[in-house]
Amino acid sequence: MPEEKYMRRAIELAKKGSGHVNPNPLVGAVIVRDGEIIGEGYHECYGQLHAERNAIANAKKRGNSLEGSTIYVTLEPCCHYGKTPPCTEAIIEEKIARVVVGSDDPNPLVSGKGFQMLREKGIEVIPHFLKEECDAMNHVFFHYIRTGIPYVAMKYAMTMDGKIACYTGDSKWVTGEESRAHVQTLRNHYKGIMAGIGTVLADDPMLNCRIEGGRDPIRIIADSHLRIPMDSQLVRTAGQQPLIVACLPDADEEKAAQLQEKGVEVLRIPGVTTADITEEQKEVISLPVLMKELGARKIDGILLEGGGQLNESALQAGIVDRIYCYIAPKIFGGAQAKTPVEGQGLTRAADAWKFNRIGMQEFGQDILLEYEKAQELQ
Amino acid sequence: MPEEKYMRRAIELAKKGSGHVNPNPLVGAVIVRDGEIIGEGYHECYGQLHAERNAIANAKKRGNSLEGSTIYVTLEPCCHYGKTPPCTEAIIEEKIARVVVGSDDPNPLVSGKGFQMLREKGIEVIPHFLKEECDAMNHVFFHYIRTGIPYVAMKYAMTMDGKIACYTGDSKWVTGEESRAHVQTLRNHYKGIMAGIGTVLADDPMLNCRIEGGRDPIRIIADSHLRIPMDSQLVRTAGQQPLIVACLPDADEEKAAQLQEKGVEVLRIPGVTTADITEEQKEVISLPVLMKELGARKIDGILLEGGGQLNESALQAGIVDRIYCYIAPKIFGGAQAKTPVEGQGLTRAADAWKFNRIGMQEFGQDILLEYEKAQELQ
Repeated sequence: MPEEKYMRRAIELAKKGSGHVNPNPLVGAVIVRDGEIIGEGYHECYGQLHAERNAIANAKKRGNSLEGSTIYVTLEPCCHYGKTPPCTEAIIEEKIARVVVGSDDPNPLVSGKGFQMLREKGIEVIPHFLKEECDAMNHVFFHYIRTGIPYVAMKYAMTMDGKIACYTGDSKWVTGEESRAHVQTLRNHYKGIMAGIGTVLADDPMLNCRIEGGRDPIRIIADSHLRIPMDSQLVRTAGQQPLIVACLPDADEEKAAQLQEKGVEVLRIPGVTTADITEEQKEVISLPVLMKELGARKIDGILLEGGGQLNESALQAGIVDRIYCYIAPKIFGGAQAKTPVEGQGLTRAADAWKFNRIGMQEFGQDILLEYEKAQELQ
Repeated sequence: MPEEKYMRRAIELAKKGSGHVNPNPLVGAVIVRDGEIIGEGYHECYGQLHAERNAIANAKKRGNSLEGSTIYVTLEPCCHYGKTPPCTEAIIEEKIARVVVGSDDPNPLVSGKGFQMLREKGIEVIPHFLKEECDAMNHVFFHYIRTGIPYVAMKYAMTMDGKIACYTGDSKWVTGEESRAHVQTLRNHYKGIMAGIGTVLADDPMLNCRIEGGRDPIRIIADSHLRIPMDSQLVRTAGQQPLIVACLPDADEEKAAQLQEKGVEVLRIPGVTTADITEEQKEVISLPVLMKELGARKIDGILLEGGGQLNESALQAGIVDRIYCYIAPKIFGGAQAKTPVEGQGLTRAADAWKFNRIGMQEFGQDILLEYEKAQELQ
């Protein structure tokens, strides 16, 4: 099916925008005439040209007329004035004859309007072409545009007996190099990265993206009592890579001022009481409120690289949309060894948090299982 | 490749003997003439006819002469008198022209001798045909024939956060029906099944095979101090399905006598000292010695359905050859929830028990990862 080939090429192009277009969607476009690709483009960077316009420009640069051509575009072309003029106008102007589209515009007030406009001009429109594949690459965008709340993807790497560290705390390494390199692509893809203060105190991480040409995520630390050390890597690099520290309303004001001086954004979030392992009550920041605050800051997606405590709080709060579970062909053993989701946990197996398995990839001897929140919980 | 098709059919036939041929290997045979299968058979039951003779008998029953035919057989035909006369003789007698073989005879003193005999009679011999696939189905046999020690396969079912039960102990259910049905095929395949006294006291299991026409495994319980209840399902059914209880040399003699009266075999095994979670020293039975004893009883393979404590002891003892790890798309959470391998566990991540991933199957939303002991540890 040559038509599928063109749309798959458009998807491939779209993904090149990963990390740079948020909170916009990834979009790719391919223009074909007489079985030949005469132009292609993608949405490269937030605020810049849409995929359709880039593809049209590319075709013209190559000396091609667009009259009578077909454009394959992964998302319904816009028909309204935003940061850029509507793409439907450009399609009409250039006398493109046929428009093949993957995903619908997620805004029900807009969706279909562009198609109508195009059809009125005698342009053939084929919607929902490879829709599932086109939708799949924009799970973050579709979630965020609908809810205004970031899409949260929990990531952890464990042994095949479910440990993220030995009972001593040693965890270097659970997975192999290929898996760890893949994690870097996730850090590039999601606009935010979040960890708990426990991870900061234990590992002093940077939480940056170590891919050449990659984009560092905005770092968010759940730190109810502002225990983050002033000499941590995170604070020391706050000037170069944004750092948001979320704490309780009554957290130390002096420490907050010191952090702000270093360029850290301190976000005071209302508390909720929760039971920990010992069933003692304690107050922690409300993760749903934090998510709203982050959504308001145009953070459309967050990679949650928490420890077992934060991961459990996130599940309890119902904010986890996806899980990336890497499994290494190793066993650490240990009743006291760390596992990916701790806290008190659930009382009954029948009440388990349920997910749908949506993907499976091999990285050497490791495997990555990908899950999405089960429908009934959404 | 039609030749591969015939050998794959022989493999398929061989597997029908699963559970009934131990400690013999699974063997299948297909006889072909002029591109047509004229006879087929497999080793059906320990002590009965070999696959080759069953295939020959089948061809004759169907009124076929074997002269000039090709036989595809998954394992090198025997050339010595055992419980049955040598298969090479039958091949020669029947004037079969060509012999295509998968696995070698694991006995280096015998391997190749049959081929020589056949070639001397002008029969063409093709060894090592689909050898890997033929070898793979007899991992238990090859291990046992080489070492005299049972092949031990650890099986567990966990959530995607590495839990086999909630912190409350509730574990009904972790995996779905399809996975649990597959476990029954493993119970049919392995001659023995082993659990720890902890599992017996918690779940009062039967450890039988719930497949129609399936074969119940011999049950082995690691029970250092003979704590097994007289009214447990295991003891009550000891007359119908063999039960071996392994205890320390100084375990209660009266209790032992009571168990023996019920048909239980009480096996006294020397102790070893081990550290548990609290780093306290305690004495438990030596698993390597137990394995030797079980091997001497012609138990060639054991499915280890232990809890975290026994699983860790088995890994520490170095007796685990394979792991069947079922993973459900669920999360239980809980720092105190049970995990598949507990005990004290390892101190350093770099010293992890390492395995090779050899298989991956889907059972509905669950997946099964299969691992074999990494070469450097063998």
